[in-house]
Amino acid sequence: MIDRISNLKGNERPLSEQAADQIQKYIIDHQLGAGAKMPNEFELAAQLNVGRGTIREAEKLLVSRNVLEIQHGRGTFVARNTGIVDDPLGFAYLGDEKRLLRELFQIRLRLEPWIAALAAEQATEEKLAEVMRCGENVEVHIHDMQNEENYLPADQKFHISIAACTDNRILPILIPVITYSVHLIGKLTVNRLYQETIDTHRKIMQALQAHDPDEASKAMEEHLRINDDLISSL
Amino acid sequence: MIDRISNLKGNERPLSEQAADQIQKYIIDHQLGAGAKMPNEFELAAQLNVGRGTIREAEKLLVSRNVLEIQHGRGTFVARNTGIVDDPLGFAYLGDEKRLLRELFQIRLRLEPWIAALAAEQATEEKLAEVMRCGENVEVHIHDMQNEENYLPADQKFHISIAACTDNRILPILIPVITYSVHLIGKLTVNRLYQETIDTHRKIMQALQAHDPDEASKAMEEHLRINDDLISSL
Repeated sequence: MIDRISNLKGNERPLSEQAADQIQKYIIDHQLGAGAKMPNEFELAAQLNVGRGTIREAEKLLVSRNVLEIQHGRGTFVARNTGIVDDPLGFAYLGDEKRLLRELFQIRLRLEPWIAALAAEQATEEKLAEVMRCGENVEVHIHDMQNEENYLPADQKFHISIAACTDNRILPILIPVITYSVHLIGKLTVNRLYQETIDTHRKIMQALQAHDPDEASKAMEEHLRINDDLISSL
Repeated sequence: MIDRISNLKGNERPLSEQAADQIQKYIIDHQLGAGAKMPNEFELAAQLNVGRGTIREAEKLLVSRNVLEIQHGRGTFVARNTGIVDDPLGFAYLGDEKRLLRELFQIRLRLEPWIAALAAEQATEEKLAEVMRCGENVEVHIHDMQNEENYLPADQKFHISIAACTDNRILPILIPVITYSVHLIGKLTVNRLYQETIDTHRKIMQALQAHDPDEASKAMEEHLRINDDLISSL
């Protein structure tokens, strides 16, 4: 089963890191998808010619990089959103959160109206149904809200579902990165734009269902501008 | 010195991961920049109320996340490009490299002409000088080239230096991500666009020096289109 993992002895970096790199390469070369079961540590240790302790250490490193997921008693699996960690671009290290929020919105305003237009052109009915489901879920969260934080991850998923309507596989990966702002908005704002969010989300959904790229782009721009105005006033 | 690290005992996740999170939080809260020296493991162990073994394990996790750098005999330091690992968005896991290259260029064509226009408006003389230096460096690499791979990282730095002319701190972080394609182009292409690269880079530099946003945007679009045409023909 494991045929491409080369003998690792005789190199300078810590064995556990080399083993981690090789395991990562194995997943990529074999195109193992999210949830695929990995060979057990005996097999990996034998194939990589290292001890089981090294494999365990390598697997821990890969868990911390969100490449693997260990399910106790069941085995080791390829993680969902493989290789993407929280805040993968280290935005938290930039400091000045108000400025960060404005910077993120500047980029969202450039990308998301365009993404909405692409989505209107390229969406399948199945993908559109997912957008509708996510949009409704945001409304449910806004209405049921016990505390603000519930609504923001649902909002992020709505924006991801729109990017997932395009033929570009990078866009739905990029959206969670540039909507990192959801972590910040909760911290920085008190007044929320509940009704405006519901209204502008609905406009976006209608434009997508009508497969109207211009309207989708305009509605997304309007939606983001309202948030951007709030942010500028912080 | 360490005042915000809370007592960690009595929680469920592995201690080393909790300790890693707390050390990360410490760096962010204290706004420690790249290269800042960390407290030694005795101090960290005492403050977090865990053993030195746990601290060492936590530090290893943070090295693998590119948050810390261990310099043997000197101590532990905050890493450059803190928290950003190679391929942070896991593009390598998507498969189909030709498609990936086209998808990345679609996004570059949306963002980089706009970035060039912002750069023309916002660049300081110091930042412009860095763009010129990076642009010249690309030409040196193209002329001296022993093998293709030398020129692509220099090209990537040129594009990053333009993004660094804008007031938006996220853009120069995003460029290396969406120019991940440099890893792919070398693998997938044989014919390179040496003279076209030199000519269109020069046009971009001239527009930036003239602080002409429209020309900068146009020149960047022309530059990327030439590459995009090559990619579409693969």
